Amino acid sequence: MNKQDNVAAPDKVRALGWVDDHVSLLDQRLLPRREEYLQIRTSDDMVNAIRDMVVRGAPAIGIAAAFGVVLAAREARQAGGENWKEVITDKLRRIGAARPTAVNLHWAIERMRRRIERCGPDPVPDLLEEARAIHVEDIAANRRMGDLGAEFLKEAGAVLTHCNTGSLATGGYGTALGVIRSAYARGHVKAVYASETRPWLQGSRLTVWELRQDGIPATLVADSAGAHLMKAGKVSWVIVGADRIAANGDVANKIGTYSHAVNARHHGIGFMVAAPTSTIDPATAGGEEIEIEQRHGGELLTVAGQNIAPEDTTAYNPVFDVTPASLIDVLVTEKGAVERPDREKIAALLAK
Amino acid sequence: MNKQDNVAAPDKVRALGWVDDHVSLLDQRLLPRREEYLQIRTSDDMVNAIRDMVVRGAPAIGIAAAFGVVLAAREARQAGGENWKEVITDKLRRIGAARPTAVNLHWAIERMRRRIERCGPDPVPDLLEEARAIHVEDIAANRRMGDLGAEFLKEAGAVLTHCNTGSLATGGYGTALGVIRSAYARGHVKAVYASETRPWLQGSRLTVWELRQDGIPATLVADSAGAHLMKAGKVSWVIVGADRIAANGDVANKIGTYSHAVNARHHGIGFMVAAPTSTIDPATAGGEEIEIEQRHGGELLTVAGQNIAPEDTTAYNPVFDVTPASLIDVLVTEKGAVERPDREKIAALLAK
Repeated sequence: MNKQDNVAAPDKVRALGWVDDHVSLLDQRLLPRREEYLQIRTSDDMVNAIRDMVVRGAPAIGIAAAFGVVLAAREARQAGGENWKEVITDKLRRIGAARPTAVNLHWAIERMRRRIERCGPDPVPDLLEEARAIHVEDIAANRRMGDLGAEFLKEAGAVLTHCNTGSLATGGYGTALGVIRSAYARGHVKAVYASETRPWLQGSRLTVWELRQDGIPATLVADSAGAHLMKAGKVSWVIVGADRIAANGDVANKIGTYSHAVNARHHGIGFMVAAPTSTIDPATAGGEEIEIEQRHGGELLTVAGQNIAPEDTTAYNPVFDVTPASLIDVLVTEKGAVERPDREKIAALLAK
Repeated sequence: MNKQDNVAAPDKVRALGWVDDHVSLLDQRLLPRREEYLQIRTSDDMVNAIRDMVVRGAPAIGIAAAFGVVLAAREARQAGGENWKEVITDKLRRIGAARPTAVNLHWAIERMRRRIERCGPDPVPDLLEEARAIHVEDIAANRRMGDLGAEFLKEAGAVLTHCNTGSLATGGYGTALGVIRSAYARGHVKAVYASETRPWLQGSRLTVWELRQDGIPATLVADSAGAHLMKAGKVSWVIVGADRIAANGDVANKIGTYSHAVNARHHGIGFMVAAPTSTIDPATAGGEEIEIEQRHGGELLTVAGQNIAPEDTTAYNPVFDVTPASLIDVLVTEKGAVERPDREKIAALLAK
């Protein structure tokens, strides 16, 4: 990964970056067993990589899409010459359709599209500059969220996090895991519980692995043990990321987030969401409008290639759920932290 | 399994039974991939089988322990002759210590101990008769619970169940799954969602497999998807079993049960516990007194022999949790169903 753009931050892992003439993607499907980087050289390969979860995590998907637009521009220039802006349209549509829930994907493509409008005949250098800016700004936003979120964690207690929201899910540093990283550095978090996050096991495969790279002690628990941890007084905050935040503050995030939120409220434990404002979609009025991705039920029937259920078992596999704003104590963004978010507070935040 | 005691019931699977001169145990660790029966011929082998989860589920553990006492008596008679009642004491203690949470284990040993007191010099036939009675009575209790519990399910909706509480977890028919079986037969349950039950995957490996044997359609979901199912209006009842019920109605059951209960209450969905009265421990005043078994963290780090987390990851693996009586809408036992159970209602039930 040393050959990638050198974007300084105190965390060691990078999920993606531009290298020479291609995008380098850490293949997150193979972690923690193998650390392999794929060279993505075409926009179609980027679509496949996003869809197949080589790269995942809403902010990282956004950055990957931005780099994918650079690849698309190179192809469009080669195929269409001066008419490249017509050729690229369909490619942008395909990148945008790779996964349905994370709004950062569309946010990044929209920002690249605006840059395309200002591009001259040789768009690649300009678009690469824009994509790199999206990457660098994401890390800066995460550092800022880390500072803002850590302010709420003053008891030196333990926290529970779900899925992976760290360097692997973002440009670097992380959203929820960035808050945990900052609070840990201040001595305000002493222990991190990571729920394993079935079916894709982002918690056990990615979060535990990533925290180990940076020397932060983590304890793995079953997703269903969250309520038991809370009842036993073992955690004082639940901190998660987001894949899309509606205008009213409802949050779509990895399946299991909502259950943690209901349990946190039941036990009087703080529930924090950390996400950049690019995750907020003003065009989505409320959580009920968010399309929840249904992935193949087979993801529940096998683990690491081993069958764990009878073949042709019917499985229902929604991979996100929606936590209503009413269950969220703090929403942390790079523009500020909002307690008890609602439509008015979100609008004010976006207007900053 | 045809050679086992023929205990008639409309379900096909039997987890255990006495065959000729030994106990036959279906090795539940291998399901659904292989259907293999172990021949258990010594009480020590039975202790190991219970501890290592060849047989699991509170009622099935109780029956296995009763048959284990028969094996222990045979050994004690061979080793101690007429002093067999002295020799067997230590063996009973070892069987009782095989697993800590399920009280049926102690209930069954205590019942066998009372029978031992009345035994003459050749105890094996008498004790085998008693153990078989425990087995037969368990199935009858489950049929009765099925009838009583099904009365509460009149809307022909879908139910969510957790872990495995069926024929595999009992003498036959099942507790919570017995209620579901009875309600399905009446057309009052049209769909069953089974949560996979990490880390041991009793839901995907056992419940889905067992329901298939009996032609009842089941849909597998991640444990953490329960809240999402409830919010989406897909289930009208959560129905679970119990490993120990305190005198005040608090219920220890498989990890994840408590989270389902909190979510059921949050969504106004019924929460039913089905368990024989042998699961109620009057000596346990409340849930806080119940010892929660902590199993090795390695159970969270591997699936089917494959590593899914970095090696030497720290994992916290409580395998049960406690649901307070206040979250339970109905407790179904073979002696009757109790709505909103509490100390007085439980005492009245046991006095029946």
